[in-house]
Parts: sequence; structure tokens; C-alpha cells
Amino acid sequence: MSLLVIGSLALDTIETPFGKAERTLGGSATFISTSASYFTEPVRLVGIVGYDFPKEEIEFLKSKGIDISGLEISDTDKTFHWHGKYDFDLNTRESLVTELNAFEKFDPVISSEFRKSKYVCLGNLHPLLQQKVVKQIDSPKLIMCDTMNFWIDGAYDDLIETLKLVNLLVINDGEARELSGEYNLVSAARKIMKMGPQILIIKKGEHGALLFTPDFIFSAPAYPLEQVFDPTGAGDTFAGGLMGWLSRTDDLSDTNLKLAVIYGSTMASLAVEKFSLDGIRHLSKEIITDRFNEFKRLTHFENASI
Amino acid sequence: MSLLVIGSLALDTIETPFGKAERTLGGSATFISTSASYFTEPVRLVGIVGYDFPKEEIEFLKSKGIDISGLEISDTDKTFHWHGKYDFDLNTRESLVTELNAFEKFDPVISSEFRKSKYVCLGNLHPLLQQKVVKQIDSPKLIMCDTMNFWIDGAYDDLIETLKLVNLLVINDGEARELSGEYNLVSAARKIMKMGPQILIIKKGEHGALLFTPDFIFSAPAYPLEQVFDPTGAGDTFAGGLMGWLSRTDDLSDTNLKLAVIYGSTMASLAVEKFSLDGIRHLSKEIITDRFNEFKRLTHFENASI
Repeated sequence: MSLLVIGSLALDTIETPFGKAERTLGGSATFISTSASYFTEPVRLVGIVGYDFPKEEIEFLKSKGIDISGLEISDTDKTFHWHGKYDFDLNTRESLVTELNAFEKFDPVISSEFRKSKYVCLGNLHPLLQQKVVKQIDSPKLIMCDTMNFWIDGAYDDLIETLKLVNLLVINDGEARELSGEYNLVSAARKIMKMGPQILIIKKGEHGALLFTPDFIFSAPAYPLEQVFDPTGAGDTFAGGLMGWLSRTDDLSDTNLKLAVIYGSTMASLAVEKFSLDGIRHLSKEIITDRFNEFKRLTHFENASI
Repeated sequence: MSLLVIGSLALDTIETPFGKAERTLGGSATFISTSASYFTEPVRLVGIVGYDFPKEEIEFLKSKGIDISGLEISDTDKTFHWHGKYDFDLNTRESLVTELNAFEKFDPVISSEFRKSKYVCLGNLHPLLQQKVVKQIDSPKLIMCDTMNFWIDGAYDDLIETLKLVNLLVINDGEARELSGEYNLVSAARKIMKMGPQILIIKKGEHGALLFTPDFIFSAPAYPLEQVFDPTGAGDTFAGGLMGWLSRTDDLSDTNLKLAVIYGSTMASLAVEKFSLDGIRHLSKEIITDRFNEFKRLTHFENASI
């Protein structure tokens, strides 16, 4: 099925204890759509870049089968640029530079073709922009939404309105606690699901992810990597695998939601092994399937009783 | 098979945001042996209490089928008393009172019958005491050891000697990082396994536990509880379920080690739902099996490929 992806495209400068990458391809929509491209088609990208956006990266996105007819290229502004530096354990990062540039004027208008998309992935954007996108979609089957502390703090009322319009919210543990005012994640999930989304995924970084539906909780582990090279885009890559799998299968059963979370985790684990987008630029089905199977070995156990 | 348990017996005063329990049964050996008693027999307890230790708690231990012939009762000293207070989110605790009393003189001498035990669980004790116990056992099949930051800081060299003598080490994530000097838990595990234990379990509290062997890594989730009532003894209860299952099955295969970790997690999840030992005092096989099956639902997913 069709998957519509809305979010940022950026040129990132990233410093980790292992090295530095300058003006490398980044942004939520980039990671989401690249990750999803391994699962489904068409992946439809809506975003904005500046006149300095490398032509070869446009070609890269096209090479993944991503429909970039919704990608606006500004004549007057540069591409969104973010410069971040991670601390020694990669658990905290500092934003050294955030130049929104063309992204500041992002006003997503969805084409008549794209409006027919059945699956929609709203990357981390101002909640008002997210609402604007949702209202343009004809008859979506599932709308997923990401957000961040910045909007919980600064645009709470708008975010609450967005949450009423989406089916699936994907946030991290800190955001879930802040949004709900609850420390316990199970209590937090209950509260957040009353705000709108029927399905909630709470990402816990190196501790995996929790999937909450009205009927069950599912716990996905993180892949135990000895070396995380660069966590940039891990959450968006997760969302791309998740929504790519759901679009591919067009199946929202409990069983299939669990698989979607594992495919999201699979893709995220591959992403963080290399700098920036490099971990997921050129993957084979074999590599993805092998990693998926490793998740199975990592968590599955036999039946037993006492 | 026979399981020998060595550790503390205490009277704990516990304060959590949900209430206070005064001079309630506690101590590592208490939690370990009670938890293990649901899985195997004989469970052989070696420890020391004071003259003030309640007779009904002796009867309680006997009622669980625990062999208390190795329990020393001091005529002159009181029972080890610990008074702890947990903060609002139960993640940190303060020790208000630690009176070792009779436990200060604990010098475990293992009877000729107990020396024949095949499975040995060394609760959190001074590493020299742990060594002393190990050297008394005739021909053990598996020796498990717990420890804590206090010994890593204060008796490092002794602990290193203990680690050479044990097969299975069970510690928490903070202890693993401190012991290894590695932040990444996979790297930490590699280093620690070079110190002696062939099998390592790193407990991550609300994030579950990781099992490392030379051949594989297994990730067990924590049971997603909305209300943790009292985390006291959760780690010891985990160890009791783990070692109880291994003693019961006498099977150290990869498949069975995974099951042991899940039974440990099962018991720990039941323990923290009530104050102190109350969560595991009176369990049925049905309750344990139901919770085990919930762990399965929580983590298992179907086969799939792209």
C-alpha cells in the first residue's frame, strides 16, 4: 500500500567519539522514507530542501524508489542544517547549530495523488503542520505521528489537537513521561492513549521499545550492539521500518503490529552501526532478514511449566 | 537436584511511597530460598539470625520445604536489621539504618550433607566468605554468585578471586559497568566473562535482564507493571527462580538457561507487586505458570520475511 512521509530533510554535521561527518544527508523524512523503501512502494516523500541540496542525494532517494514529486526545492534558501555533538556514551547530545533555512517556510501541500495515500507517517514537525497534513488526506487507514519535547513544552495545546487526529503515536520514554506527567511507563501509556492514539509505541533507546494497544503490551528488545556508532536518525529509521511493514502488509492485527515493531527495531539497529544514513543506504533483503531472525533468537524461549 | 543457598536473613523496615513495613522478613537468603522453593527440593539454607528472629518465620521457611538445618540462631545477638527508604519513583533508595548484629559474625560452615549439593547460590556476601563456601563444596555442577558495588569498591581483589571460582555471575547494570570499567553492556559482559564466570546475567531493573554465554545473548523483558509496590528483594527473588529452575531441570543447555532467566523474571515480577516477601510467600503453580505465559505473550512474535 501507499505510504506518505512528511518531515525534514537536512544536511547534518555530526560529531561522535568515533569521528565527524560534515553536511551529510539527514532529517526525519530522509531516514523514514529510506528505511520504509525496503518494505513497500510507493513511498511518497513531502518535504523541502534548499538550493544547495546535493543532486546526488536527490538521485539516491530516487534510486530507493521514493516518489519525490512532493519535494520542494527552494531557490532562495539553503537546506536545513543541524550540527550535533554526542558525549562519550552517546546518551546525550548537544545541538551546536540549528539553521532551519528553507525548512522554516515548510508548508506541506499534498498533491491529489498523494492525498489518496492509505498510510501516513508524520515526522517530527510543529503539531499545526501535522494537523494541516492530516486534514488533506482523503481516507487514510493509519496515521502515525512522531513528536518531541520541544513541542510538548512549546506547543502543548496544538499537540493535544494533533493527537486526537492520529492512530499511532511513536515517542521516547522521556517524552511519554513529560506528555503524561506519569513516571511509570504503563501508567503513562494509559493516559496518552486517552488523548487519541489507539496505538502507542514508547522507544527506550538501548532498552528497546514497548507497544501498547487497548488489548496487550508487547516488549521488543534493542539489539545488543557492542559499538553504537551514531544514534542520529535511529528513531526515524524505526518509524520507517514500522510503517513500511504495515503499508506492505496492510494488516493491523495484533500479530502484525508486533512484527512491525520488530522490523522497526531491526532497521534502527542497522542504522546506528554506521554514521548518519550510511547504515541503511544500501541494504539487502538478506541483511534485514538475518537481523530480524537475530531478534527472534534474542527473545524467544520454549514452553515450560512447573 | 539439591540447591544450596547462602546469604543473609534480616528483619527489614521498608518505607516506600505506598507505605511502611516494620521488621518484616528480609535478607538475600530468605528471598532466594523462598523463590527457589517453588521449583526444586531440597533447598538448603545456610545463614544466621539472632535470638529475636520470629519463631513463626522459622516455621514459614520450613513450610516452604526449605531445609533450615544450616540456620544458626545466635544466643547473644539480634538479627541483622536494615531500614531503607525509597524515593517517589522507587529507583533510588537510602539506607537509614544497617545493623549487622549476628550477621557480622557469620562464618558459613557447610555440613557434610550440604557439601554434596550440586547447585550453589552465593548471595551477596563478602567475597572471602563466598570463597570459603565454594571451597567446602564437594563437586558442584553450577555455582552462582551475586555481589554489589560495596564489594567492587571495597574488596575488589577478593572479588576477582571469587569470580575465578564461580560459573554464573548475576549483577545489575551499574555493577557490571563498575566491575568492567565499560559503559556498553556488551563490552562489559565480554570483559567480565574473562574474569571467570562462563555465564553472566546483567539485571536492568524495569528494563529486564540480559543473559550472556560464550555462544549467545538472550534478552528478557521486565514485566510491565503499572504499580511496583516494593523492589526490595527483587534481585534475590530473580536468583531464586533462576537457580530453582536450573536445579529442578539439571540442564545447562542454552535453551534451558533462557527458561531459567524467564522464571527468574517471573518470580521477581510477582515479588515487587507486594511489600517485602509478601509477593512470593504464598504462590500457586498456576499463578507462576500464568505469569510465565504472560512473559511469552509479551515477547514472542511470528516468523516473517521481506
